[in-house]
Amino acid sequence: MKFVNRIILILFFLHGRVFFTFAQPTAEITRVAPGVIKLTSGKPEQFSPYYFCNEKPMTAAMGKLPEGKLPFNIQDIRIDITERGVLVEIPLDKQEQLYGFGLQMGSFNQKGLRKKPIVNDNPSHDLGYTHAPMPFYVSNKGYGILVNTSHYATFYCGSTAKNTGAIKLSDGKSGNSVAELYKNESPASGYVAVDVPGVQGVEVYVFEGPELLNVLQRYNLFSGGGALPAMWGLGIKYRVKADFNQQQVGKMAEYFRANDIPCDVLGLEPKWQTAAYSCSYVWNKDFFPTHDQFIDTMRSKGYHINLWEHAFVNPKSPLYAPLQNKSGNYLVWNGLVPDFVDTSASKLFANYHKETFVLKGISGFKMDECDNSNLTMGNATWSFPEHSRFPSGIDGEQMHQVFGIVYQKAVYNIYKELNTRTFLDVRASNAFASSYPASLYSDTYDHHEYIQMIINSGFSGLMWSPEVRESRSIADLMRRSQTAVLSAQTLYNSWYLQNPPWLQINIDKNNKNEFMENAKAVEADVRKLLNFRMSLVPYLYSAFADYHLKGIPPFRALVVDYPDDPKVFNIDDEYMIGQGMLAAPLTAESDERKVYLPAGNWYDFNTRKKYAGGQEYVIKTGYTDLPIFIKEGTILPLARPVEYISPDTRFELTCYVYGEQAETFSLFEDDGVTFDFEKGKYNILNLSYQNGKGTVMKTGGFKGSRFQVKKWEVIR
Amino acid sequence: MKFVNRIILILFFLHGRVFFTFAQPTAEITRVAPGVIKLTSGKPEQFSPYYFCNEKPMTAAMGKLPEGKLPFNIQDIRIDITERGVLVEIPLDKQEQLYGFGLQMGSFNQKGLRKKPIVNDNPSHDLGYTHAPMPFYVSNKGYGILVNTSHYATFYCGSTAKNTGAIKLSDGKSGNSVAELYKNESPASGYVAVDVPGVQGVEVYVFEGPELLNVLQRYNLFSGGGALPAMWGLGIKYRVKADFNQQQVGKMAEYFRANDIPCDVLGLEPKWQTAAYSCSYVWNKDFFPTHDQFIDTMRSKGYHINLWEHAFVNPKSPLYAPLQNKSGNYLVWNGLVPDFVDTSASKLFANYHKETFVLKGISGFKMDECDNSNLTMGNATWSFPEHSRFPSGIDGEQMHQVFGIVYQKAVYNIYKELNTRTFLDVRASNAFASSYPASLYSDTYDHHEYIQMIINSGFSGLMWSPEVRESRSIADLMRRSQTAVLSAQTLYNSWYLQNPPWLQINIDKNNKNEFMENAKAVEADVRKLLNFRMSLVPYLYSAFADYHLKGIPPFRALVVDYPDDPKVFNIDDEYMIGQGMLAAPLTAESDERKVYLPAGNWYDFNTRKKYAGGQEYVIKTGYTDLPIFIKEGTILPLARPVEYISPDTRFELTCYVYGEQAETFSLFEDDGVTFDFEKGKYNILNLSYQNGKGTVMKTGGFKGSRFQVKKWEVIR
Repeated sequence: MKFVNRIILILFFLHGRVFFTFAQPTAEITRVAPGVIKLTSGKPEQFSPYYFCNEKPMTAAMGKLPEGKLPFNIQDIRIDITERGVLVEIPLDKQEQLYGFGLQMGSFNQKGLRKKPIVNDNPSHDLGYTHAPMPFYVSNKGYGILVNTSHYATFYCGSTAKNTGAIKLSDGKSGNSVAELYKNESPASGYVAVDVPGVQGVEVYVFEGPELLNVLQRYNLFSGGGALPAMWGLGIKYRVKADFNQQQVGKMAEYFRANDIPCDVLGLEPKWQTAAYSCSYVWNKDFFPTHDQFIDTMRSKGYHINLWEHAFVNPKSPLYAPLQNKSGNYLVWNGLVPDFVDTSASKLFANYHKETFVLKGISGFKMDECDNSNLTMGNATWSFPEHSRFPSGIDGEQMHQVFGIVYQKAVYNIYKELNTRTFLDVRASNAFASSYPASLYSDTYDHHEYIQMIINSGFSGLMWSPEVRESRSIADLMRRSQTAVLSAQTLYNSWYLQNPPWLQINIDKNNKNEFMENAKAVEADVRKLLNFRMSLVPYLYSAFADYHLKGIPPFRALVVDYPDDPKVFNIDDEYMIGQGMLAAPLTAESDERKVYLPAGNWYDFNTRKKYAGGQEYVIKTGYTDLPIFIKEGTILPLARPVEYISPDTRFELTCYVYGEQAETFSLFEDDGVTFDFEKGKYNILNLSYQNGKGTVMKTGGFKGSRFQVKKWEVIR
Repeated sequence: MKFVNRIILILFFLHGRVFFTFAQPTAEITRVAPGVIKLTSGKPEQFSPYYFCNEKPMTAAMGKLPEGKLPFNIQDIRIDITERGVLVEIPLDKQEQLYGFGLQMGSFNQKGLRKKPIVNDNPSHDLGYTHAPMPFYVSNKGYGILVNTSHYATFYCGSTAKNTGAIKLSDGKSGNSVAELYKNESPASGYVAVDVPGVQGVEVYVFEGPELLNVLQRYNLFSGGGALPAMWGLGIKYRVKADFNQQQVGKMAEYFRANDIPCDVLGLEPKWQTAAYSCSYVWNKDFFPTHDQFIDTMRSKGYHINLWEHAFVNPKSPLYAPLQNKSGNYLVWNGLVPDFVDTSASKLFANYHKETFVLKGISGFKMDECDNSNLTMGNATWSFPEHSRFPSGIDGEQMHQVFGIVYQKAVYNIYKELNTRTFLDVRASNAFASSYPASLYSDTYDHHEYIQMIINSGFSGLMWSPEVRESRSIADLMRRSQTAVLSAQTLYNSWYLQNPPWLQINIDKNNKNEFMENAKAVEADVRKLLNFRMSLVPYLYSAFADYHLKGIPPFRALVVDYPDDPKVFNIDDEYMIGQGMLAAPLTAESDERKVYLPAGNWYDFNTRKKYAGGQEYVIKTGYTDLPIFIKEGTILPLARPVEYISPDTRFELTCYVYGEQAETFSLFEDDGVTFDFEKGKYNILNLSYQNGKGTVMKTGGFKGSRFQVKKWEVIR
């Protein structure tokens, strides 16, 4: 469906002269999928984020959503092409609230802010810089705007006013106090302005609702559906110290099993390679003399092995010679920057990884340093310059924006082609990446920010690991552990710790093997939390299935589910997990916190106390309790915890029924490790409870059986 | 003198294809002034920093400098014009040290760093953002490079390496410790790369030495010579609380005189106007009912009045209607952004200021908020968007970079045309602004950074006020006061303090008129420091005369005077003042500090102890002492302190002679308030000391006499 935009002609009567700006006279408007409209103006750049999207839109699922309705006329989106680049203006209502721009840190509600979403490891005073920025925002009025550019764009979210001569001031006098000085009568701006310098045209994707949740569903489905990680990826990941050798890793593996602490993945940090900055992608035989056997042994004990690396190819690497002419014209740490835009370069990189690692049993990678750090050390910047050139024709600025995506794509497709699922770590991402099972992480380590990033990631088809390293106090360790348990990936990153942080929170003492006096008690407390994570896996896995099949983010801000409740507009420290669970994590600051519960009734998971929604409460939560609330009407299946998840694992479930009228809960069942579910090889187990009796209705094409409901328990 | 650069043709043999980048085939090379070479390539932008330079080059003075010599061939500067913009590459020797980029905070030696010098109030992790950034760096090898652009450029200062296939690695194995992981073998980069997106050509100014000091001299002289502020500007400036009325200001003025605390300038903060955010430029009659009489009264008591303002014109302002069509297409706080690039707009703004304020006796302005703050408050950004358009044709990005300059130019020229000197405060600046008598300031308030900024400002023809506000402790107050006394402008900014900070360092108590128990003792200590400042005025004023006539920065990093001493390459907390004084300010952290003294012998000003240079010492300095060292051979004239400086002030001097062989010191004498010195109406008083006798030799065309040498004192 195409129709033609009106001719846009802008006249600036300024300085007695007349300025004519001919915007692209016709902006082409195309409906590209159910509820997704593309505006095209001028000559859009080739290497846009959508150009790299790995999957086709899931149009059937999108078609099932209620029909969208924009709160403005699509023709009122204005696109001007100027000598500077492109200026896009999107109508904005005074009452609207805006969210998104990817994995933002330091801000949540973006209304009124100026944001420059640039890939960078550094949130820098909330300019918009972050590991996974996105030229994409959503409105609580039920639509989303994605400016499909890999250039550095700036979004003015209703913070600019024009010199139209129509200024009306209230006659209120400004106050006399110093505090009142900065008050000013800014008119409510009627638009979001997006400045994209250096381009000759642009595509703008408009995602319809009608509700905010539907907008996110459409975005994720349009991107190919949210990622469904390998089921073991929802267990515990532990990254060992960077200089551990294979004996030391083996000892750590034994520690977990001997102490009944669940663990699914062990991550190896830089020293497994002969060269790390830049990377050789060659096993360091001093540390891992029998690496393939080591992998097999670990796997036999239920561990998956994940390898740290980055994409900058060391001269010592076997990949160096074949990639030299398929790389950018600048080096990073003497290493090549492969031109992943060129599929022949990606293939070389991927095939080497496949043969050398994946076929030998490596289950995933941690793809580090693709985030354009500002760091400079020893006269070397940590990334390539923005004016870099690549054989494919992409430049350094664009490559910065998409590097995390094309790197993920290269690595993920190794697994996809082998029909083997994975769960990756990645340091950078961008738009249309919902289908990658990869979790972002950072060095910033502020706990409140880490909670906020769980929430912000849900607006953008991203996953975020609030990883635990060292801690300031036991309280800090336990609160961070709770947050890790209630996130997409539960990750302890001990890359500079000899021992798990729960045995010693202090870095120096930890590395001297000096344990805390109460180490065993703390270990027991952490074990409880990690066991809860394992109990939650079936519920979480189903939430991820909803992410894939329906586009529903497994972790979401309250405003996504309650877009009309002004009390949630600025809540950046509570979030929904799956259908009926609300998390309100605590930091080390206090053992209690304010929790706002939206409309409906809610149950404190720990005390089972019932709370009426629409109000705020002060709730106390212990270290081994979970700061979660269950919505009335929810059936919550919790499993008997297992220590790790294998294809054979069967989960013994207790179904907790909250309230009188429980809604059906759909449990997703498949093999957990292949992509066969994409061909229908999965089951839905509908759990329902009526008249004092729980029932399980199973439908679908998967032959196996992973779940056994052992018990129903009603909470009222 | 013009000659033609070789044809530059770059071939990238990448990916089997051949990339042709036609750089501008001929870069025109012009010698524009003695020791200043301009390279022109492509179609340079119109609104470059040099376009706005207010003065003609002082070519006669430049011609007197020793002949320059570049350490590379001028043709080896490469300028490529690409679709992205312009890339400039300048040769760089492995041993070179680089400095500059304007008023940088957080970094000093710029070698190896990536810098994006953008006007912004926010140093943001040392990206290069600052109040007065500059596309200008200098090398200790004796040259400076200025890329004459108002676009956002990025400088890679030897931190990038190219993919040339010529990588040679040492065979050293990387270490096993975590700390060694990040070591990498970066090759010494052979160039500085400057990425200027969005332009079609560029001018590059190369300033020759031979010495680093000569480079700075040439830069300042080319910009029209360094500023010589009104002599009273070197006294003490005190900014009163924002909501003081004229009685309260009068009381403050009485306080200074009654307590024998020197003060030359009283600054009024926002509330003197009827509207401040944005500005009306209209006296608030509730606060200043008889403002013109008030100014006269203050002047009769020896005070100069400085008015706070910014350039964003409120709808209530009489300037609003005439400027509406001469302003940008966006508002800031509902206020117009005047297009100061258009001289008719500048003239309107200036004439109004002249008639309303300057001719009524206002001696200067504090030009605030021209620094492109990222702040957003109440849904309004603190500046105009980068995609703004102005009637003159300049865009928002360029306007951000030059706004501080064109604003200074508009205001300064009011005074210049009236043949009256001033000393201004300004919040933003850029290149070729050496001739403006305006001092920069900030809200950042880190004392170490404030010291560093005195030093960095000297590389770029800027002045910096390390202003004193509240303090954490008496030590903090005293150490900050010492630094203020040893800077271009001694400023106490009490815009939110009811009383001077030396009576109460705590904000809340200060505003409740609760004074410290030892307030009078602290006041006495501050008085001593401020009296020292007044003693220093003749020496400082002569240093500023050298700045104007010879281009020598009055405040300079040690590396400027000692460019071959590797021990000073990274010293960012010691600096030269005038010819023979070295300052090494302390912060509240300690009462002693390490001081490196370069070659020669030095005298501790306080103890008169002699130290051999080329070494580091730990020196203790009291609160009322001054952390300064005098170089052997210096004649230091110190005046009996006066409370303020008027055209009639006569300074009674004691000349301190340090060492056996004193060099002649040239004291500059003029009326201190007009530009008549530019027509030769000044004297040089040559002070010399030989055979136990001091002599004064006076030459020049100024009829008056300001200095009387009362005493000579020899220190050995």
